[in-house]
Amino acid sequence: MLELLSEHACFGGMQRFYSHHSKEIGLPMRFSVFLPPQANAGKVPALLYLAGLTCTEETFMIKAGAQRSAASAGMILIAPDTSPRNAGVAGEDDSWDLGVGAGFYVDATEAAWRMQYRMYSYILELYAATVQEFPVDPARIGIFGHSMGGHGALVLALRNPELFRSVSAFAPICAPAKCPWGKKAFSAYLGDDSKSWLQYDASALMASRQAPPFPGGIRIDQGLNDKFLADQLFPETFEEACKKAQQPLELHRHAGYDHGYYFISTFVEEHIRFHDRRLNGNA
Amino acid sequence: MLELLSEHACFGGMQRFYSHHSKEIGLPMRFSVFLPPQANAGKVPALLYLAGLTCTEETFMIKAGAQRSAASAGMILIAPDTSPRNAGVAGEDDSWDLGVGAGFYVDATEAAWRMQYRMYSYILELYAATVQEFPVDPARIGIFGHSMGGHGALVLALRNPELFRSVSAFAPICAPAKCPWGKKAFSAYLGDDSKSWLQYDASALMASRQAPPFPGGIRIDQGLNDKFLADQLFPETFEEACKKAQQPLELHRHAGYDHGYYFISTFVEEHIRFHDRRLNGNA
Repeated sequence: MLELLSEHACFGGMQRFYSHHSKEIGLPMRFSVFLPPQANAGKVPALLYLAGLTCTEETFMIKAGAQRSAASAGMILIAPDTSPRNAGVAGEDDSWDLGVGAGFYVDATEAAWRMQYRMYSYILELYAATVQEFPVDPARIGIFGHSMGGHGALVLALRNPELFRSVSAFAPICAPAKCPWGKKAFSAYLGDDSKSWLQYDASALMASRQAPPFPGGIRIDQGLNDKFLADQLFPETFEEACKKAQQPLELHRHAGYDHGYYFISTFVEEHIRFHDRRLNGNA
Repeated sequence: MLELLSEHACFGGMQRFYSHHSKEIGLPMRFSVFLPPQANAGKVPALLYLAGLTCTEETFMIKAGAQRSAASAGMILIAPDTSPRNAGVAGEDDSWDLGVGAGFYVDATEAAWRMQYRMYSYILELYAATVQEFPVDPARIGIFGHSMGGHGALVLALRNPELFRSVSAFAPICAPAKCPWGKKAFSAYLGDDSKSWLQYDASALMASRQAPPFPGGIRIDQGLNDKFLADQLFPETFEEACKKAQQPLELHRHAGYDHGYYFISTFVEEHIRFHDRRLNGNA
């Protein structure tokens, strides 16, 4: 059951914020939904957006300016929070890159975290809730995200291509098993056996594919003035993995752009058009 | 002298945040500037945006999605903070609608506030700094704002039509001398003699005009689901004053829209086009 927290008219549609009880997490979780005007007339495609470290269900909706393009394309946008809140895990508030605001879209297996930090399964739970509660056409759902959420989008899509028909990312963490953010989070949530990390590593998942999981292509935009690019993101590792799997990849590198929402807002319209073409066959 | 705090590539232009010493306020003040790509090639028109209660120089730039239209139209956007910060006035942090974040774009005359709370003159100081420091064409500068900042934009424009060639507002406080926010702020900043308030009351200023100060029209957008509409905003008072002065007014009332940035983002492109037509003669 969804609890409506607030709603705001926006571009002829409606921006809503909800809370619901998550079975996977065992706690209330918040998420946001933008319903384009077309959703009043029947089922429409939808895009899940996964946000990055320290973000909430509000960040993308208030900063990216995506509703304009979504209203034009007739797409629902859905953005979850980035972790459980108030789970009561010791130390969950101590760092900005682990615990609260940093769920990393994995199902934790380590004792301290495993009861609540189940963001991978929560995204699938939210997917099902979305299809049930909103006029979403389940055959036309895509996923995208930013940074930690770009990692989440790629991993969710690669592991569930039957659910997500299109995928893109802004400055994603492409190889978390080998970057400092990923090593810290994965060792805390998943333990020291780094083999278990690879199920959540988009580059490792892609490299293991025998055929391209998204023959219509994957889009990534990466700013070249992004201070996290050299140490944390590794788009070239994902690029190599895509070549190995013969997966078409549009990797757009942009001189001057950084890691934040001024970058995302610049290219969000192109991402929504990318998904629109793949979900609706609109060229 | 301007201190560059940060910059972010955005829509082919540059989003910058600055600090400078304000002579009027006697303290460092922050403001933000969006430079469209056209600003690299010569002088371009500019729009000052004044934000509402509790906002900062960042709010409009990160929430309104205006850079897209400004980059397309080739307009510089400038957004100041909404009050002095750390002025050391007793009680300045006690309420959200007086003091910090609530300068109301007036020059205070009461002893407690008068040394620093000089936001009216500060906007004119910033105007001059902008013309000096950025490739702004001084003959093509407009002003707009939201709520308290809509009030500020209307008042600055009505008192300085030679400086501001176009003016618009989102949900402005149209008659501050008779609404609770305005009465609280004006009595604190300007004292109990309400005659002195009228120089900062857009409806009173307009009603006193013998000829329309903006023959090309003024644009206001107002959501009808705005919880402040009935008690604080009084667009109908400004509408009457415009009739009296034969000032053309486009007052767009929008069913369902509220007071926030989801509303502003929906109509910001139309505002930028409104100014573009008046500043550049583009229909």
